[in-house]
Amino acid sequence: MGLAVAQMGPVHLAEDRAAVVKRLLAMMREAASRGAELVVFPELALTTFFPRYWMTEAEAVDRFFERSMPNADVQPLFDTARELGIGFYLGYAEITPEGRRFNTSILVDKTAKIIGKYRKIHLPGHSDHKPDAPFQHLEKKFFEVGDLGFGVWNMDDTNVGMCICNDRRWPETYRVMSLQSAELIVLGYNTPSWNIHWNELIHWRTTTHEIVLQASAYQNAVWIGAAGKCGSEDGHHMIGSSMIVAPSGEIVARSSYEEDEVIMARIDLGLGQMFRDHVFNFAKHRSPHHYKLIVERTGAGDPLPTGD
Amino acid sequence: MGLAVAQMGPVHLAEDRAAVVKRLLAMMREAASRGAELVVFPELALTTFFPRYWMTEAEAVDRFFERSMPNADVQPLFDTARELGIGFYLGYAEITPEGRRFNTSILVDKTAKIIGKYRKIHLPGHSDHKPDAPFQHLEKKFFEVGDLGFGVWNMDDTNVGMCICNDRRWPETYRVMSLQSAELIVLGYNTPSWNIHWNELIHWRTTTHEIVLQASAYQNAVWIGAAGKCGSEDGHHMIGSSMIVAPSGEIVARSSYEEDEVIMARIDLGLGQMFRDHVFNFAKHRSPHHYKLIVERTGAGDPLPTGD
Repeated sequence: MGLAVAQMGPVHLAEDRAAVVKRLLAMMREAASRGAELVVFPELALTTFFPRYWMTEAEAVDRFFERSMPNADVQPLFDTARELGIGFYLGYAEITPEGRRFNTSILVDKTAKIIGKYRKIHLPGHSDHKPDAPFQHLEKKFFEVGDLGFGVWNMDDTNVGMCICNDRRWPETYRVMSLQSAELIVLGYNTPSWNIHWNELIHWRTTTHEIVLQASAYQNAVWIGAAGKCGSEDGHHMIGSSMIVAPSGEIVARSSYEEDEVIMARIDLGLGQMFRDHVFNFAKHRSPHHYKLIVERTGAGDPLPTGD
Repeated sequence: MGLAVAQMGPVHLAEDRAAVVKRLLAMMREAASRGAELVVFPELALTTFFPRYWMTEAEAVDRFFERSMPNADVQPLFDTARELGIGFYLGYAEITPEGRRFNTSILVDKTAKIIGKYRKIHLPGHSDHKPDAPFQHLEKKFFEVGDLGFGVWNMDDTNVGMCICNDRRWPETYRVMSLQSAELIVLGYNTPSWNIHWNELIHWRTTTHEIVLQASAYQNAVWIGAAGKCGSEDGHHMIGSSMIVAPSGEIVARSSYEEDEVIMARIDLGLGQMFRDHVFNFAKHRSPHHYKLIVERTGAGDPLPTGD
């Protein structure tokens, strides 16, 4: 299977959706011409990463949320997907008819049908205004925790799971999908190069991104395609480092630039099967009765007494 | 806190426990002299990695299992720990008075008291004889799945968790311990450089070992000390690569040789706390109701319907 990851350079506040969609279309055409059957776009791909700005929810909805999908702005993506016979993953800010707000991604098949929707569960950041911080991280203000669970959809005989950005740091994310026989997990992200909450070393921001993708691909015997935004959006730098990771945990394709860039790999789903048949034969090796705390506790608590 | 990891070179079939304990003592003394408060020894540290040989359970028990702990052979380790005021982790094959067999580790404090016991849960390998394989991996024949769960013990104001070898590849292992407020996870292992089950690339054996330790330390905001055996036991090569990993996911100490070798780090437990206060504030960010499949399914099954 041909998998493409379409990294995006910055989307500045001044750019409109039409300009962004034009860039996405160019990458979709490139991906298709290089043999991709699926192209992965970033989280909140249609706009700048607006949760970095303090504003009212009403203003955010007005400027940055999509009331329907597809809509007139993104229709060209659907039309071109159908024309080229290529599927895509797209992240965007969703507002429902009831006014609920989610950080959402969709999986669209090569007939341009939306076959899956995911709403981000692990929302990072805060909901209050931090006037002393150089920028905000207001996902907990603008979005609700996703209500759809971690889904897996069969697309052209491949089981595809989705998650978004911070979800990729949580091992539960991948495990719930691999227990639904996911073979490929796709995700978009916007990761600032600076952590506003504490003095985290800047290079850790890339290291931790790499190791969670690598280990999670391996531990769940899945391929992962991760598409980020990169470069500086109005002065706010993001890590980029979009990549495709094999079930061996190896990075098989990686972005090289801080701009729009398509990376590609021909992925062999049989490789994941080898790991699922052996070291990660879940049915043979897992012991769920020893894992109960994972669902019984939210935060950490005291050590439990052991039987000996 | 001073943490030492004592990697072991090979233990051949012909070596007796007295010779092995002498090597462990030398490393314990070196660790203490370098300021360690805890030294981590490998899995099944007292003998060769015997699950690679086909034999009856009775023969294995006779040659390789411990009927009590401490016993006369290992008493010098306990005496020296008390003398030096250093704790240790030790892996060994345990047979209970009822005749149950486990792949076990103990946590011993600096007064030489056993304060924790763990019995390996994720047993790799097989239970049948594979006469065409270059060697066996008979952990499923010689051991039962551990019955004590994943424990965490407070040792001198540090919460220490234990696991063994293959457990380190499973994200559930670490999560159950970090939900019990583990700050440090210690483990021993014997990892053959060749996979007898399928044609896994040899370098993956080390890569996957690294990335699971790195990602798990980060995802659980814990320090990890991992002690392996290395070199060739009677011609059977093991990966070594013993290491200490920080909560940032970075490898801060790593073995350099294929022989007995002590590596050290002064570990700052406050670093883990920074991650637990921010990106991995479990109480604030986890969503256990979306994780239920982790305990509801053992093997992978069909995708579930999502709500949208």
